Amino acid sequence: MYYVGVDLGGTNIKVAVVNESCGILAEANRPTGAERGAEAVCDDIVLAMQEALQQIGLRLEDVAGLGVGCPGTIDDETGAVRYANNLGWRNFNMRAYLQAKTGLVAAMGNDANVAALGEVYAGSAKGAQSAVIITLGTGVGSGVILDGKILTGYTGAASEIGHTVIKDGGWLCTCGRLGCFESYSSATGLIRMTKEAIDREPNSGMARLAQQRGEVNGLTSFDAMRQGCPAGTAVVKEYIHYLAVGIANVINIFYPEIISLSGGISKEGETLLAPLREETCSYVYGGMKEEKRTRIEVCTLGHKAGVIGAAMLAHQRCNNQ
Amino acid sequence: MYYVGVDLGGTNIKVAVVNESCGILAEANRPTGAERGAEAVCDDIVLAMQEALQQIGLRLEDVAGLGVGCPGTIDDETGAVRYANNLGWRNFNMRAYLQAKTGLVAAMGNDANVAALGEVYAGSAKGAQSAVIITLGTGVGSGVILDGKILTGYTGAASEIGHTVIKDGGWLCTCGRLGCFESYSSATGLIRMTKEAIDREPNSGMARLAQQRGEVNGLTSFDAMRQGCPAGTAVVKEYIHYLAVGIANVINIFYPEIISLSGGISKEGETLLAPLREETCSYVYGGMKEEKRTRIEVCTLGHKAGVIGAAMLAHQRCNNQ
Repeated sequence: MYYVGVDLGGTNIKVAVVNESCGILAEANRPTGAERGAEAVCDDIVLAMQEALQQIGLRLEDVAGLGVGCPGTIDDETGAVRYANNLGWRNFNMRAYLQAKTGLVAAMGNDANVAALGEVYAGSAKGAQSAVIITLGTGVGSGVILDGKILTGYTGAASEIGHTVIKDGGWLCTCGRLGCFESYSSATGLIRMTKEAIDREPNSGMARLAQQRGEVNGLTSFDAMRQGCPAGTAVVKEYIHYLAVGIANVINIFYPEIISLSGGISKEGETLLAPLREETCSYVYGGMKEEKRTRIEVCTLGHKAGVIGAAMLAHQRCNNQ
Repeated sequence: MYYVGVDLGGTNIKVAVVNESCGILAEANRPTGAERGAEAVCDDIVLAMQEALQQIGLRLEDVAGLGVGCPGTIDDETGAVRYANNLGWRNFNMRAYLQAKTGLVAAMGNDANVAALGEVYAGSAKGAQSAVIITLGTGVGSGVILDGKILTGYTGAASEIGHTVIKDGGWLCTCGRLGCFESYSSATGLIRMTKEAIDREPNSGMARLAQQRGEVNGLTSFDAMRQGCPAGTAVVKEYIHYLAVGIANVINIFYPEIISLSGGISKEGETLLAPLREETCSYVYGGMKEEKRTRIEVCTLGHKAGVIGAAMLAHQRCNNQ
């Protein structure tokens, strides 16, 4: 059987037809246009799905289920979108609407959680007993997969690891708290550290680099470090410190088989991972001295994680998992 | 059928015969004497079990399984005690030893986790979809129960919530990190806050109270507050602040149906809970504005949580749950 996975973002609807081995057979995209309302967006999801199916000569009857990764908080029991700020929706029962429209079994999940599920089915965390996926982007997103299932908690709002305080009284977070993991370990946090260092050391190589490029971004400090600038090295070290504090917290709580990082900063690969693993290890309770220990890696599916995870969420729902 | 639950502590072995409704039918205790070695302690567990069974005229054949809550890290797969610092044991396969000795199915878990399971089966968190039990004692212990199962992670070492950093660079924790939840929210942390306040304000009512009693303990600040001392009120407020920061982190991660507190400080009841709930709520992502929200309560089983949880762990293992 085939499953349809939908990655619903603020900008685009991405739809894929996925087989039971997580292979993507066909894809279709549409602009989201969330301002048209939730029902119009759902209608476009169905059109994109039909378009993708047609590409490979399949019909609706060949599809066992439809899964959607959606921003915001999803009610696990009903499949309703409780609130999705960047779509502007509240309390829309998307699962019921899509089921009625297509006659298919539909499954709903938060987009970060669904992408994490994709990594566990087919990416960096394939086959892991437990995995935490952390996205280092504008914010810090996260998804927790335990025994193959998404951790959603009592309400669907679980897994906001970015909004756990690691430095009480520290930097103001977008959520209103002081010292959240997100405020230090996001690209936004790294850029703040970089700008503060440039202000402190306006004659550093990093300051010159930023001036040449006309901007400070998540690459500035890493590039400056690669050019031998001590100010760049210090910022990277500061950034990795906070990331290690947050990741060690995650290990002490979940002790997952793997933690995989995604988002722009994760593209630094071993430049980031090698010192991160060392510092994290020194913070973990008991020191991760055993053979069986949490691996820290980068995600491998990129943007495909969302559609694959959504399709596999539908697979789970179809099989009462 | 009946189950035997064992709460193995540094000082005492507590054994209970428990029915399927979590009722305790008979109990027996022995001193632990861990220095005699793990096998001698296991032999005493079996003797205590036989003693408890005899009290109510049951035989070994009437028992379906035996569960043990043990300090330290337990290997989920093998049932071995990987390390238990306060017993001085390393890599002892307690499950295999007890199974061979009794012919019963045996189940092993960390003591804090097993006590948490007891609270979910029969105590404050009865029937909850998800629960986090936090013990505010000399340290901060915790157990996480999701869908009726203990969260143990990849190695059995999960759920060390006390050793998550909430204030990077803060107070030194026994684990070596700076600013752990435990270093602020344990009784030890409260006593430190109380002593620091007494040093700052040696003429306060709280300072006099401590002097009259000849010691500072976890009650000093709460009692001073009840006597109208502003220094006492300030310490209680400071303590509740850090507790709220840590508990809000737990909610943002797990969004459990309930968080239950145990340990000496939890005996303050509503004096602690009412302001704690209010401050925690203000820190939770999304503000816990929904009807369905995490309840914050105190545990109800006391020391019986350990033996009941251990018996129910055996029940789960007997039923392949």
